[in-house]
Amino acid sequence: MSQLLTPQELEARLRAVGAARYHNRHPFHGLLHGGKLQRAQVQAWALNRFYYQSRIPMKDAALMARADDPELRRIWRQRIIDHDGNEPREGGIERWLALTDALGLDRDYVASGQGLLPGTRFAVDAYVRFVAERSLLEAIASSLTELFAPAIISDRVAGMLANYDFVSRDALAYFDKRLTQAPRDADFALDYVKREARRPDQQQAVIQALVFKCDVLWSQLDALHYAYVEPGHIPPGAFVPDAAAGKASRAAT
Amino acid sequence: MSQLLTPQELEARLRAVGAARYHNRHPFHGLLHGGKLQRAQVQAWALNRFYYQSRIPMKDAALMARADDPELRRIWRQRIIDHDGNEPREGGIERWLALTDALGLDRDYVASGQGLLPGTRFAVDAYVRFVAERSLLEAIASSLTELFAPAIISDRVAGMLANYDFVSRDALAYFDKRLTQAPRDADFALDYVKREARRPDQQQAVIQALVFKCDVLWSQLDALHYAYVEPGHIPPGAFVPDAAAGKASRAAT
Repeated sequence: MSQLLTPQELEARLRAVGAARYHNRHPFHGLLHGGKLQRAQVQAWALNRFYYQSRIPMKDAALMARADDPELRRIWRQRIIDHDGNEPREGGIERWLALTDALGLDRDYVASGQGLLPGTRFAVDAYVRFVAERSLLEAIASSLTELFAPAIISDRVAGMLANYDFVSRDALAYFDKRLTQAPRDADFALDYVKREARRPDQQQAVIQALVFKCDVLWSQLDALHYAYVEPGHIPPGAFVPDAAAGKASRAAT
Repeated sequence: MSQLLTPQELEARLRAVGAARYHNRHPFHGLLHGGKLQRAQVQAWALNRFYYQSRIPMKDAALMARADDPELRRIWRQRIIDHDGNEPREGGIERWLALTDALGLDRDYVASGQGLLPGTRFAVDAYVRFVAERSLLEAIASSLTELFAPAIISDRVAGMLANYDFVSRDALAYFDKRLTQAPRDADFALDYVKREARRPDQQQAVIQALVFKCDVLWSQLDALHYAYVEPGHIPPGAFVPDAAAGKASRAAT
C-alpha cells in the first residue's frame, strides 16, 4: 500500500520519472543532436515523428470529450489551437510539415502515413487510446513529459543547426514555438495533478501515467534506431531512404 | 480502384504477403533457431512472447463478441479452449508458462507483465484493438498468419533442441500442439475470407489486415532484437537478464 505524498513529494517523484525515463536519454537523440546522422536518417525521424504530431490534437480532443468543466476545456483547447492553427497554413502540424519539406520529403507521402514504422504507429495509437480510456487525471498526467521538453528542444535546435547544413533555423520553427508553449501547458498539468491526486492510489496512477508516456516516446526512438542506424533493419513496407539523397547531404558518419 | 480477384487470386495475394512479411524472415528468428542466443536472450523472447499468448484468447473473445452466427462462434470457440484449456493446468498458455519455467523465469513475474518491452505491449494491444474494432471480415483475416506458422514452428523446435542444452522437448510442448491447431484454424479462416470478401474493397481490406498482423509480429521481434542483441539497448524498466544465469547456459555467441 502506497503512502499519501505531499504535492511537493508527488512533484519530486514525477521529476524523478523524467530524469530516468525521458527520451532525451535515448541514444538516438545523442546521434540526432550530435550531428551523427545522415540526411536520410533525419528524414526517417521527421517522417515518423510527424505521425505523433498529427495525433496530438486528436488526443487532446479525446481528453476534452471527457472533461465536464468548461474552465478545463477552455484551457486545454489552446493546445489544439497551437497544433492546428486558426488558418490552413498555421499551427504546429504545419510547422512540422515545413521541416519535412525542408528535408526533401513529399508532403502527401508524409501525411499518408505510408512508410511509417509499425513501432511508431503502435506506440502513438496506444497514447491516444490511453487518453481516451483512462481517468481524466491519468490523461492529464500523461501530458507531463512536457515538463522535460524545453531542455531537449534547446539541445536539439542548437545541435541540429550546428551540425547539419541541410537544416535551417526556419525549418526548425516548430521547436521555437514549443519553447514557450510546453512550459505553459506543463505548469497547468502539474498544478492539476498535484491538486487533484488526493489519494495514494490516484498519486500512483499519476506516476504510472507518466511512466507510460515516457515509454511511448522511448519506444518510438527504439524503432527508429533499430531500423535506420547501422546496421539498420528496416521492416517490410517502411520508408527506405533514397541513397542519392543521403549522399547529397553532409555524411556525418 | 482495385479489381475483383477470384478466390484463388485472393489466396495467392495473401500467400505473397506472408512470403514477404511473415516474421520467419526477421533476423531475430535466425538467431533464435540457429543457436546464436544465450539463455538470457531466450528468456527475454519467452517473457515478451508470453504477453502475446496471454492476449490471444481475449482477442478471440472480442471477435466472438461481434459474431452473430452461432456456427462461426462455435468454431472460433475452439481457439479459446486450445489456449485456456478445460482445467487450470491445461492449454496453450499453461504450456507457454512451462517453457518460461524451464528457462528459469518466475511465473508471477512472467504473468505480471512487469519487465515487458513497451514495444511488445503496444504491438499486442494494437492487435486486440484491431480485432475488436474492425469489421468481422478483417478480424478473421488478421488471424491468417497461422497459414505460415507450421514452417516456422518446425524450424524453431528442431533448431532450439539441436542448439540449446537448456531447452527440452517437454519445454516446447506448446509448439507440438500448434502444429495441428494452426493449420485447422488457418484453413477455416482462409475459406471464410475467400468466400465472404466479395467486393474489391473487402478483398483489399483482407489483404491489409494480414499486412497489419505481420507488422504486429515483426515489430515484436524488432523490439527484442534492439533491446537484447548486441550491443543491446534495454529500455528503462524492462527485463534485465541475470548475467549469472546467462553464463550458466551454453554461451553460443
